[in-house]
Amino acid sequence: MIGSDIGALFGTGIAVNNSIIKLIKRKGDCAMENVKVIIWGLGAMGGGIADMLLSKKGVDIAGAADMGQKVGTSMYDHIKTERGGRPEIIVSEAEEIIKPGAADIVILCTDSFTEKAFPKIKFIIEQGINCITSAEEMSYPGAKNPRLAEELDRTAAEHGVSILGTGINPGHIMDMLVLVMTGCMTDVKHILSRRVNSLSPFGKTVMEEQGIGISPEEFAERKKEGTMSGHVGFAESVGMMAEGLGLKVESFVQDMEPIITDTDRKSPHGFAAAGSCAGVAMTADASLEGGIKIRMEHPQQIEPEQAGISTGDYVKIEGSPSINLVNSPEVEGGLGTIAMCVNMIPQVINAEPGLHTMLTLPVPRAVMGDMRDRIKPSKKLV
Amino acid sequence: MIGSDIGALFGTGIAVNNSIIKLIKRKGDCAMENVKVIIWGLGAMGGGIADMLLSKKGVDIAGAADMGQKVGTSMYDHIKTERGGRPEIIVSEAEEIIKPGAADIVILCTDSFTEKAFPKIKFIIEQGINCITSAEEMSYPGAKNPRLAEELDRTAAEHGVSILGTGINPGHIMDMLVLVMTGCMTDVKHILSRRVNSLSPFGKTVMEEQGIGISPEEFAERKKEGTMSGHVGFAESVGMMAEGLGLKVESFVQDMEPIITDTDRKSPHGFAAAGSCAGVAMTADASLEGGIKIRMEHPQQIEPEQAGISTGDYVKIEGSPSINLVNSPEVEGGLGTIAMCVNMIPQVINAEPGLHTMLTLPVPRAVMGDMRDRIKPSKKLV
Repeated sequence: MIGSDIGALFGTGIAVNNSIIKLIKRKGDCAMENVKVIIWGLGAMGGGIADMLLSKKGVDIAGAADMGQKVGTSMYDHIKTERGGRPEIIVSEAEEIIKPGAADIVILCTDSFTEKAFPKIKFIIEQGINCITSAEEMSYPGAKNPRLAEELDRTAAEHGVSILGTGINPGHIMDMLVLVMTGCMTDVKHILSRRVNSLSPFGKTVMEEQGIGISPEEFAERKKEGTMSGHVGFAESVGMMAEGLGLKVESFVQDMEPIITDTDRKSPHGFAAAGSCAGVAMTADASLEGGIKIRMEHPQQIEPEQAGISTGDYVKIEGSPSINLVNSPEVEGGLGTIAMCVNMIPQVINAEPGLHTMLTLPVPRAVMGDMRDRIKPSKKLV
Repeated sequence: MIGSDIGALFGTGIAVNNSIIKLIKRKGDCAMENVKVIIWGLGAMGGGIADMLLSKKGVDIAGAADMGQKVGTSMYDHIKTERGGRPEIIVSEAEEIIKPGAADIVILCTDSFTEKAFPKIKFIIEQGINCITSAEEMSYPGAKNPRLAEELDRTAAEHGVSILGTGINPGHIMDMLVLVMTGCMTDVKHILSRRVNSLSPFGKTVMEEQGIGISPEEFAERKKEGTMSGHVGFAESVGMMAEGLGLKVESFVQDMEPIITDTDRKSPHGFAAAGSCAGVAMTADASLEGGIKIRMEHPQQIEPEQAGISTGDYVKIEGSPSINLVNSPEVEGGLGTIAMCVNMIPQVINAEPGLHTMLTLPVPRAVMGDMRDRIKPSKKLV
């Protein structure tokens, strides 16, 4: 399968110690067109994806879709990269630009929930175009919407294209990374997946969604009403880990508690007075077949340093051998999600048609060379 | 593609907070035969693989191959697990038991080098059986033996089976894990992959191979002669990372230095007097296209704690965002390699025929349920 790649990187073999590996001609010296990507949703994620794509080789932004006042404006008005000498990209309604043959893939960054993303994803794949979405629930849609997931899988297969939901979390740091570490274990007994992150880099919308600065009473009321968004993804992460290990989920409980601050905390876009909420601590506990437990902990807050809390990603797995992994500080959520959506483009284009998860595709890794080098010619759509 | 799995784990959907996920019937409630594995080589790795397989569901050891005095003895004489009521497995010559239809996969644990493993792997795949090998160089055989790799790829494809070389290192902790972390990065500038491990758990062979207790002069002589084995795998790890990032290797240099101990160090199977070698420090430096550097550091020694050295696996990646990952203590090499060889069985059986690497298969994870649940029925050989 990889015969054509093998030997390419090291020429005709290397001798250790002071050897120089011969350069070889690029695999992608063929006439393949650049990978064409349409971005749907130019918020923080979609905009960041545009910036990242503009820094990469062998890939073009074939269009940008949004709605309301953004339609008709320049994409460059909504991202960090300056247009410079690049061709103009005018933001359009999705239906105007997402048409058969318009792109190899659409990256959809408009929603968190499968139900809301569903009609958009269905529309994309019905045009015969692959889809990656940052919608958290779509990282493992079988957890909450198995029927929609089945419909998406069937429709994608019918149209010969693939779908993946991914991001930093769910999608990488609290679930796939855990599974990757179980790969070198002969037995697994207990999983603790903990992500302690700072909300300080985020904007006003996130401050409101996460209840920054609200009173404990308001938190309790909003929690009861279901208007505290907290973290979306524990059910998906647990589902992915259970499937990854090959075990059924026997129970799943999640909860959220306010993080009440002792002192005033101020971030660029948020403020929490002493006694108010500086964030939300989400937890989940799951039991799998065979008595294996999964504990998820995800406290998100502004200015954790002010409370002496160091941020980080923690994977502790009891088993044989045990794992005690720390990435500190945590992978920044925004950049991490942007990177995952872009870096998985080749895997999704190359995939067997249908609905995928991070479990069914080759391992993620940064696209640093020409993106075309990774695309199977038979899978290139346009 | 995964439609049949979706919804299976969570039944018909879950409600958050105190919900219990309904149990569903196992996917593997079909009449699929257990996965059949032949182990070739009953040393520390092959023996450990036998022990691990005997603890798993839906998989049988269909045979054990070795040579010399082990032939004709019971497999259980060479592993930790007691036979108990299990059927006897008599160790045979490889050619006697590795025949068409004898197994779904052979796990080959006899060699470190591609040239030595090559005829054995070729023999296995010519019988129409998949192959996983712990041979370090086979984790990325294109690095040193591109022509043999191409021949293996072609032969495997002709016989409709797959090959993978894997282990803890190369195969996971110093290369694939690095790539997985770059998956959440928009840009990569510098990679440091460092594994500080203890040789204390290993036996006399490793003590001799790694020069434990020899003088600095003898080390220098053996290094010159090429009889200091050190770590086998840096060229392979660099090749895998370069291909993963999509960049060519422009230069590669590796070296080894003795770790001279200040005080006497004693491990169960080794002794290094003050002034002698307590281990080997391997390093490698590689430059990839675009000025990206990879630094590999792998000091291996007995009783590192006596010198105040804490063991661990370290991945530091400069880029956006930067990564600062530590797993401490290190994943034990023996168990890690055993686990990788067993846990990758489903991915290799399910794969597109040919020669694979950890880059071309779905992410590794522990097999905790029935192994048959992960096997595509169309890929089951026997």
